[in-house]
Amino acid sequence: MPFPQRVKIVEVSPRDGLQNEKAFVPTEVKIELVNRLSAAGFPNIEAASFVSPKWVPQMADGAEVMAGIHRKPGVVYSVLTPNMKGFDAALAAKVDEVVIFGAASEAFSQKNINCSIAESIARFEPVAEAAKAAGLRLRGSISTALGCPYQGEVPVSAVVDVAQRYLALGCDEIDVADTIGVGTPARVREVMRAVTAKVDPSRVAGHFHDTYGQAVANILAALETGIGIFHTSVAGLGGCPYAKGATGNVATEDVLYMLRGMGIETGIDFDAVVDIGQWISGHLDRKSASRAGNAVAAGRAG
Amino acid sequence: MPFPQRVKIVEVSPRDGLQNEKAFVPTEVKIELVNRLSAAGFPNIEAASFVSPKWVPQMADGAEVMAGIHRKPGVVYSVLTPNMKGFDAALAAKVDEVVIFGAASEAFSQKNINCSIAESIARFEPVAEAAKAAGLRLRGSISTALGCPYQGEVPVSAVVDVAQRYLALGCDEIDVADTIGVGTPARVREVMRAVTAKVDPSRVAGHFHDTYGQAVANILAALETGIGIFHTSVAGLGGCPYAKGATGNVATEDVLYMLRGMGIETGIDFDAVVDIGQWISGHLDRKSASRAGNAVAAGRAG
Repeated sequence: MPFPQRVKIVEVSPRDGLQNEKAFVPTEVKIELVNRLSAAGFPNIEAASFVSPKWVPQMADGAEVMAGIHRKPGVVYSVLTPNMKGFDAALAAKVDEVVIFGAASEAFSQKNINCSIAESIARFEPVAEAAKAAGLRLRGSISTALGCPYQGEVPVSAVVDVAQRYLALGCDEIDVADTIGVGTPARVREVMRAVTAKVDPSRVAGHFHDTYGQAVANILAALETGIGIFHTSVAGLGGCPYAKGATGNVATEDVLYMLRGMGIETGIDFDAVVDIGQWISGHLDRKSASRAGNAVAAGRAG
Repeated sequence: MPFPQRVKIVEVSPRDGLQNEKAFVPTEVKIELVNRLSAAGFPNIEAASFVSPKWVPQMADGAEVMAGIHRKPGVVYSVLTPNMKGFDAALAAKVDEVVIFGAASEAFSQKNINCSIAESIARFEPVAEAAKAAGLRLRGSISTALGCPYQGEVPVSAVVDVAQRYLALGCDEIDVADTIGVGTPARVREVMRAVTAKVDPSRVAGHFHDTYGQAVANILAALETGIGIFHTSVAGLGGCPYAKGATGNVATEDVLYMLRGMGIETGIDFDAVVDIGQWISGHLDRKSASRAGNAVAAGRAG
């Protein structure tokens, strides 16, 4: 299969990238991050999470972030909404897209939210209905799709099953997420082929963590199956709660470098993204986890 | 094309990984590194460089390293030999394979060794003849095959031309080396397809640096063209002299993680390699650049 000529990058750093930061990132920094990302050309930004601040204190200021950002026309601003309370807040904040999220691993579902996969998806029904009624985009994220920290192997059929349930709920887009970064290219192809046999490939996204250094190769493998939507995070922001000190989300700069080199359009300004990655890393007082970002920055410094 | 079922990993950390270290790495550490690598199952180890100590002071103890290591039966120990002086020393050290190295970029050749590509290869003729006469394996490395820090783009035809010259010199194996890590998968395929149209794929190796985070994806792309030999370096040892502070060679652990996940055999003990990567990083007083290595080590630590 030929590669897609154009890829949509969903930038997740404001949410997935920051949510595990221990020190609270000031609201104005989050706002500046989102504004810089939209200015750089990202078509879709995961801006916040409307979850309980007890679960994720870092995301407690989601409404303030949404209220404070410049809303660039055409950009889709997404937030996570686990329940109706979150949805109502998201609606009030005038988001463009709400995201529901369940696991493909029974063990992960039980351990994380204390219910089965089927139960977790049933809980999303009112959110999905309300999103459709409000005319919002609805995205469904399938976590642990390539492996689970508790049960290890996750059957391909379980991923396809969750994808079909999301489709039945009316999801516009479905994310196949390697939450712990354990996937390798052959498995990525297998899972993506199975999912796209049931869901139009134009509605399927790949969300890969780089915990084991596989994410860029996994994106290449997914591209080869016709997937054209990927989630990335500037500077590779976002750690792995299952392996302290390990790498998190795949770095946007590394993915853009590959896509640019392969002549695949994204509409995103690579140099501006390098700047954003260096800026936010400086703010968080750490070295960027993006290899391309660091190499370009080093080259500029001479 | 189906993936190769078995891949040969050439471990280059003792040479390419260490050669740019500023502080001299004690000879006994180099010896222990080589011995640990052979014990872990690497079939081919680039153990030293017999170049002038004026050029590369870190490699001044190549003869001592070769004399001090345990020679594991079946393992091929390789060293770089730019000229007859180096070759004579390598022969005296009883190496198994000598490596000659030229660029595919005219600008790089002129700037680095002050002669044209054709002249540089002509200079290797006596080394190649002597290697063949002594019954040693001969490997030819094509540097800047995917891009050059001075001229930028390197024509595919220039890479094929150097490969054919190496073949004419009697090289048993030819390395396509992305010295500065700028290659992306589509270009890797293009170059590998062009080279393997002239050289049997079983004799072609991929040597990728991870400077821009592309190396694992580039290895996947090369595997898809039938390449089954790759150079790697534990802990990603080896920086990039053209971008200070940037990543160097692709980390062995990350590559083994991918190959294992894809069911491709290497004969190498992954867990032992994680140990070696953590040990040598500790010795050099830095964090390993291997994502898989760090994630596994973090998981072990709990």
